[in-house]
Amino acid sequence: MNYKERYQILFNKINQYNTTEGIGITRIAYTSEEQTCTHAFMRMCKLENMDIRMDACGNVIARREGKQNSLPPVVMGSHLDTVYQGGQYDGVVGVTAALEVVKRLNEKGIETEHPIEIISFACEESARFGVSTVGSKAMAGLIDKEKYRNLQDRDGITMEKAFSLCALDFDSIHEASRVNEQFKAFFELHIEQGPILINNQKKIGIVTGIAAPVRLIIKIIGKASHSGTTPMDMRQDALLGAAEIALALEKVAKHEQKNGTVATVGVMDIQAGAMNVVPGEVEMKVDIRSTSIESRDTVLNELYETISLVKNKRNLDIQSTVISKEEPALLSSELNETLTNICEEKGYPFQLMPSGAGHDAMNMAKLCPTGLIFIPSVDGLSHHPNEYTDIDDILMGIDILEEAILHYAKK
Amino acid sequence: MNYKERYQILFNKINQYNTTEGIGITRIAYTSEEQTCTHAFMRMCKLENMDIRMDACGNVIARREGKQNSLPPVVMGSHLDTVYQGGQYDGVVGVTAALEVVKRLNEKGIETEHPIEIISFACEESARFGVSTVGSKAMAGLIDKEKYRNLQDRDGITMEKAFSLCALDFDSIHEASRVNEQFKAFFELHIEQGPILINNQKKIGIVTGIAAPVRLIIKIIGKASHSGTTPMDMRQDALLGAAEIALALEKVAKHEQKNGTVATVGVMDIQAGAMNVVPGEVEMKVDIRSTSIESRDTVLNELYETISLVKNKRNLDIQSTVISKEEPALLSSELNETLTNICEEKGYPFQLMPSGAGHDAMNMAKLCPTGLIFIPSVDGLSHHPNEYTDIDDILMGIDILEEAILHYAKK
Repeated sequence: MNYKERYQILFNKINQYNTTEGIGITRIAYTSEEQTCTHAFMRMCKLENMDIRMDACGNVIARREGKQNSLPPVVMGSHLDTVYQGGQYDGVVGVTAALEVVKRLNEKGIETEHPIEIISFACEESARFGVSTVGSKAMAGLIDKEKYRNLQDRDGITMEKAFSLCALDFDSIHEASRVNEQFKAFFELHIEQGPILINNQKKIGIVTGIAAPVRLIIKIIGKASHSGTTPMDMRQDALLGAAEIALALEKVAKHEQKNGTVATVGVMDIQAGAMNVVPGEVEMKVDIRSTSIESRDTVLNELYETISLVKNKRNLDIQSTVISKEEPALLSSELNETLTNICEEKGYPFQLMPSGAGHDAMNMAKLCPTGLIFIPSVDGLSHHPNEYTDIDDILMGIDILEEAILHYAKK
Repeated sequence: MNYKERYQILFNKINQYNTTEGIGITRIAYTSEEQTCTHAFMRMCKLENMDIRMDACGNVIARREGKQNSLPPVVMGSHLDTVYQGGQYDGVVGVTAALEVVKRLNEKGIETEHPIEIISFACEESARFGVSTVGSKAMAGLIDKEKYRNLQDRDGITMEKAFSLCALDFDSIHEASRVNEQFKAFFELHIEQGPILINNQKKIGIVTGIAAPVRLIIKIIGKASHSGTTPMDMRQDALLGAAEIALALEKVAKHEQKNGTVATVGVMDIQAGAMNVVPGEVEMKVDIRSTSIESRDTVLNELYETISLVKNKRNLDIQSTVISKEEPALLSSELNETLTNICEEKGYPFQLMPSGAGHDAMNMAKLCPTGLIFIPSVDGLSHHPNEYTDIDDILMGIDILEEAILHYAKK
């Protein structure tokens, strides 16, 4: 059995844990389905002679001893949970790739100086509780315990309750923190979830930084009036104000594209919209992302300027509220140099690129030098049943991951 | 008791028939509440020695004999039904004003050559069955009987059933047609439902034509994608396409404002809109109105041109469907000359203007020379509990209506 056949079997095993057969993969964090999958993965690691444990947050940590166990471990991993009706690749690729790397080392009988760890992070997706990368946040000591405790899923189950159903004690979540440990390096292999590699015909993306979104709610208040009897110059149309803001946001984000910046209006709700009523109130939700704080702030400032112009021009009341503003994570340039060298040696077409989506790697970057490796997503599709990455592309990713781990763990 | 006090009592009597005290007026067509009101109005007409009848569609026709009863009648009226939680003035003003005119003639002992009729039209509002001006349509022979029969209200009651609950036989609705009769003239007094008279400090609007809406549903299909991982130049954002179309529509409608044209996007729904998703599909609802077919078509053509441009520029699929396209009604210039003379004689500030909203007058215009007289709506507000017109403004409207009726009925 070659690498490809072996990997395909492993990949398929993980994706049999799914509550929505035929319409994507549903393996929501801290549910029985996800826990069964996680425990199956632990058994697979055990079969490779790794030490396995689940920490207080539900993260799985599987350790392969090094020649010198006191040295800081070289770590790799991703997550096994999914969104509702998601795809087969998001997260799964990184976790199964890590196990495949260990299988290869075992098969080749390679011993490393540093110990090697695989981590399968708990609750990376925000699908259940509205918060993402919970496991890696816990590991990096970034959890606001009292805020998280009472977050509810769509059935009204709190995070605390969900923990207890998995035999985890929410009160002990801080014990998952590893801020006082030393790590040599962390690597995550993940699908791109975007169209850049496919469009550029590259196989590997070496991620320079992970954008954190600034999110705003913009409420535009005009005056609802009769669509037939209100002359055009006597209207206070909230929707047209919103339209101008959305287009101005696109314009500045396009200008900032050179800095990997994006901006999106994903929600634009008209209050009591009706065909014969001039819209009186609109709520927009805006998401701006960049790995460059400067570029992000350029977009944000332009947005505020547009709001001010539209407000005066159209006689609208516009209130904007920032609901989240996190800082982007810059990844290790030293690790990226190593990854670049590996790609060049192997002759795999690659590029440096930012990540617009969040990943566990952004929290791990608080603990140690961190690298994030992307492989192509067909059609840029993700969080969707049709999410797809060619297995040959996954295998290229695994090759890079294997070399990187060996580079830092040292033969 | 002066005119003002008398009129106020009449006005209040009608508005006591209301199912939603404290939150506007609800007197929905063909309900017990509306029928009780309608029958009370019939008794009031009877007290003024008029012949009263209800036709097969539920229209009330009250007739004051003339010296020569074979002459075609001079007719005035409006409607007593309301929308859900509407105001006190829409429709009511025109019906009560007509009765007040008859009271004045009776009080003064004026006999006219022509008979005079008051009509309280049935089901003017589309609130219940989604179709408007049902009574006047029936009178003008414009009812599509089989289409209307099974229209349902929000409780699933069909129009046919609603008729039967009012002791009306839906099968006989065609008997309400008066297309084979002769009419001297029809006048409707109505609140403007818009801000023009208030803004221009006029008391009377003489309506030149009634706009009929062209309504379209525009479906814009792009591609939903991740807001963080999709670069700005690889997006097919349906919402931004919609925003461009809405702004272009506003621009051309503003240019056509000189022709009394308006255009509105009242609905813009994002399919599965979410903060972190580039909108993949948007449905817009568009309402364009003008009394000039030429101007309306200018707007419509510009809309189609914009759709075509946006489609190509943004790589979107855009489907537009016209869901209604009625022809505007031009009102009688001869009657408007008479109304102009009356306003000038009385020194009431007036203006000629189009009507952006539909009225029973537009159907009556198919039967005879028709005039529509507007009085101011404070804040342009209508179909709303706060709808308001000063009683002194209503009395000015009644004065004009009285003179117009006398002019055509002849002392």
